[in-house]
Amino acid sequence: MAKSRFEYVRNFELPDPLIPNTYIVVRIDGRGFHKFSDAHGFTKPNDVPALDLMNRAARAVMDDLSDVVLAFGESDEFSFLIRRSSNLYNRRRSKINSTVCSLFTSAYVFYWSQYLPDRPLKYPPTFDSRVVLYPSEREVRDYFSWRQADTHINNLYNTCFWALVQSGMSTTDTNKALQGTDSKAKNEMLFSQFGINYNNLSPMFRKGSTLVRSAPAEPSSSGAGSATDMPEASTFAVPVRPFEGLTGEVVILHEDIIGDPFWLDRTWLLA
Amino acid sequence: MAKSRFEYVRNFELPDPLIPNTYIVVRIDGRGFHKFSDAHGFTKPNDVPALDLMNRAARAVMDDLSDVVLAFGESDEFSFLIRRSSNLYNRRRSKINSTVCSLFTSAYVFYWSQYLPDRPLKYPPTFDSRVVLYPSEREVRDYFSWRQADTHINNLYNTCFWALVQSGMSTTDTNKALQGTDSKAKNEMLFSQFGINYNNLSPMFRKGSTLVRSAPAEPSSSGAGSATDMPEASTFAVPVRPFEGLTGEVVILHEDIIGDPFWLDRTWLLA
Amino acid sequence: MAKSRFEYVRNFELPDPLIPNTYIVVRIDGRGFHKFSDAHGFTKPNDVPALDLMNRAARAVMDDLSDVVLAFGESDEFSFLIRRSSNLYNRRRSKINSTVCSLFTSAYVFYWSQYLPDRPLKYPPTFDSRVVLYPSEREVRDYFSWRQADTHINNLYNTCFWALVQSGMSTTDTNKALQGTDSKAKNEMLFSQFGINYNNLSPMFRKGSTLVRSAPAEPSSSGAGSATDMPEASTFAVPVRPFEGLTGEVVILHEDIIGDPFWLDRTWLLA
Amino acid sequence: MAKSRFEYVRNFELPDPLIPNTYIVVRIDGRGFHKFSDAHGFTKPNDVPALDLMNRAARAVMDDLSDVVLAFGESDEFSFLIRRSSNLYNRRRSKINSTVCSLFTSAYVFYWSQYLPDRPLKYPPTFDSRVVLYPSEREVRDYFSWRQADTHINNLYNTCFWALVQSGMSTTDTNKALQGTDSKAKNEMLFSQFGINYNNLSPMFRKGSTLVRSAPAEPSSSGAGSATDMPEASTFAVPVRPFEGLTGEVVILHEDIIGDPFWLDRTWLLA
Repeated sequence: MAKSRFEYVRNFELPDPLIPNTYIVVRIDGRGFHKFSDAHGFTKPNDVPALDLMNRAARAVMDDLSDVVLAFGESDEFSFLIRRSSNLYNRRRSKINSTVCSLFTSAYVFYWSQYLPDRPLKYPPTFDSRVVLYPSEREVRDYFSWRQADTHINNLYNTCFWALVQSGMSTTDTNKALQGTDSKAKNEMLFSQFGINYNNLSPMFRKGSTLVRSAPAEPSSSGAGSATDMPEASTFAVPVRPFEGLTGEVVILHEDIIGDPFWLDRTWLLA
Repeated sequence: MAKSRFEYVRNFELPDPLIPNTYIVVRIDGRGFHKFSDAHGFTKPNDVPALDLMNRAARAVMDDLSDVVLAFGESDEFSFLIRRSSNLYNRRRSKINSTVCSLFTSAYVFYWSQYLPDRPLKYPPTFDSRVVLYPSEREVRDYFSWRQADTHINNLYNTCFWALVQSGMSTTDTNKALQGTDSKAKNEMLFSQFGINYNNLSPMFRKGSTLVRSAPAEPSSSGAGSATDMPEASTFAVPVRPFEGLTGEVVILHEDIIGDPFWLDRTWLLA
Repeated sequence: MAKSRFEYVRNFELPDPLIPNTYIVVRIDGRGFHKFSDAHGFTKPNDVPALDLMNRAARAVMDDLSDVVLAFGESDEFSFLIRRSSNLYNRRRSKINSTVCSLFTSAYVFYWSQYLPDRPLKYPPTFDSRVVLYPSEREVRDYFSWRQADTHINNLYNTCFWALVQSGMSTTDTNKALQGTDSKAKNEMLFSQFGINYNNLSPMFRKGSTLVRSAPAEPSSSGAGSATDMPEASTFAVPVRPFEGLTGEVVILHEDIIGDPFWLDRTWLLA
Repeated sequence: MAKSRFEYVRNFELPDPLIPNTYIVVRIDGRGFHKFSDAHGFTKPNDVPALDLMNRAARAVMDDLSDVVLAFGESDEFSFLIRRSSNLYNRRRSKINSTVCSLFTSAYVFYWSQYLPDRPLKYPPTFDSRVVLYPSEREVRDYFSWRQADTHINNLYNTCFWALVQSGMSTTDTNKALQGTDSKAKNEMLFSQFGINYNNLSPMFRKGSTLVRSAPAEPSSSGAGSATDMPEASTFAVPVRPFEGLTGEVVILHEDIIGDPFWLDRTWLLA
């Protein structure tokens, strides 16, 4: 069979390398998740098992691809940071993008029954994804700040919205009632009308979920999570290479990533 | 919370539109499927339930995205043809690529237990994908000819390989024995040594699987699959718009797509 | 000197190949030519020597790059068609784009004094350019139709505009007078107020300038410019390869390229 | 005339924005300059008027585009640095690339007779160009170090080569004689055989030409070229914005740009 006669079509597969030494963010988004969450009875405004499943799928991505050093998720989206020096798949855009998206999707379906055992999956959920490049640390920090600020804004709104709806207000009236209200007004409404202190809500709802690898325990270190948990060379030992975030257990945090401490404790993320 | 302060990072999401009016092929490939098929006990050289599952996942893609008018699969890969005039997701490359890949992956995991009920999925399988553009009909035809020719070449080789291995030869010796042999020699070896008439093997193994939508039945049509199964306007009726392949049941064929008849019977594929 | 230490920066030069077998159009545009034409006293609405110079520069592009098979120009712009099968500079986008633009610019300055001997060049004129890909013949035809239709529309407007201005009307009043008028009204105004029969104006103004290479004379051919000027193999001779438009004298035409005849006479343009 | 019928072809002009906040380098290269320099009798290994003309053309680019803050040239090439925050032409790749290339080409032809009055231009010289993005300061520094190191390596080789050729050796023998020699050997050959002290050669030949804008004179500044020539706010005055390199006279330097001092004196270049 004349194989070679057709093989010229491979020439139409063009290279798509990403610029070297630039931070890579892959963001996946649920496709049609409004309908999907309704079909599967997700609790409003937040369904804990469904969020845990998102986090589990994100961990599967990090377990598989060591160059993914950070992930941040909220609702039906997750952002993955690939370190700037990564040569994953020779930095081919489509390969990276599709692999992360497929890994996440596969794990989401694979672990579904473990996290939502009483709610059988009715049809295959899907996600789409995109790759974004950031040249400097500042922009990567601001990217994740943007997503965490968005988490807060959306969650505050949704908490008010569903409190009102569950108290009997129509969705139309609820939307109208919330239109133009600022954060303070929403906080006060939650407290005065529903006795909800927003700041006491689960940090996962308010801060989203952040996945990083933990650095190995350090004898001289004063404590995990502090700025001193970076390995230091002992006076008599060979120099220890700093932790690069490529090994170690993936942990799930629900803390502030807009301020400096999170990043100062994990300098490898932006190295 | 200062949302706007961070939102500038969105400016780093650059447009990636595909050239209009050009055929779009998305090809997905199993990632690490050598290991995956071993871990799940796939029959060699072809595991029928596993191939049926691939076809089921491909059908899920076509059921979801009507602009995908054709799919062709073999082994752990599948190629999808999106019609040239499609405006799916405004022809955004990453969106199309990731959505097709996620849909396929999700369906593959979702339907696994239905097709391989006795073999529990051990870990999430993943695929990657790429988008290739073809400007003319000739190249699209040659692309699918390339894949079907490849199916034949690989299947003939693998059939010989596993026949020899299952008869007791070591894989090293088998590779050596097959090196440099042409099609004819392989056919003869199968027949003389193993009594296998290659052409009697399942068409799915030899020709791969082709998915298309079937045109609606046509009273005046002389027969399914012939060049006349295109709808024709009756003399007294309003003109019927030709079938575009966007509706109708997806059917799975295992026939030749290198020659003209397949395409002449379905002129909408390249319209 | 440590050359190699720095050479890694070459890795940031990424490939930018154009899709194979697709028509390439490069369009150059004058940059700041409103000011430039004022500074150099261009006759309004059309300056013949300046247009001849544009054509001369376009010819320099075609003389240098044989894969440029057609050029069409009007005002301060020129479009170049590179044949679909071209492998010019391995189809690298930036290389093709910058080379065509530089060639054109260089020739424009180089030949200036020959075409406008009494008007010394006051400062270096510049052009910018872009590459556009078209997958099929229809789109290439429509691209050049678009430019020629534009030539007509602009020229009719400008002819009216400058006739009115030169008769003493202010530019503000002229713009107002012409606003919303159709072609017919403009033609009548030219005829009734200024005795100008638009259709008698120079074809270069109305139809723009089209550059192609002429096919070699053919003994049996009935005449230049007809559909029969394609080389034919004589009964007794070796088969003659059809003219590909890569050789032969570049000629400048001012004729209709929206209709079929121009293209039927030169089938190599879209081959 | 049906303009709109054809205008859809504009949809094939796809966006090509460069990543924001990333350093842009445009490098232009002479096309066929070996032949061009022979045809125009360029002195070997360096023709001063021809190099001055290159510098003049580069200055024309900087005079026209204020976001080009630095240029470095040698032989028939020039590299232009566009500051990272630039929004020139909305950072459209083709527009920036072609404009810089056209500007340079145009100025080169325009000023030719002023710099080489006795050598009439025989045909239009052309250049091509490319755009390269660099995410960080380090890479920009290394890019220009790469070019200046290359200038030295090429010039030392060419100085030896032409000294030997002009002393009567054939070009073949000269190439053979120089093959594999290191810098030290070349320096010694120049001194012992030709009495040339390489380090006394013109800095323009050894260091290339660097164009930057000079910061405005500063009363309190201790001297030009020092790290203190940045404007400082006087105690009683409104704060002075630091010099951004967008204004001020373009000056041509032939000094080291691999070390830190050049950059420390001009912090705006990488700001």
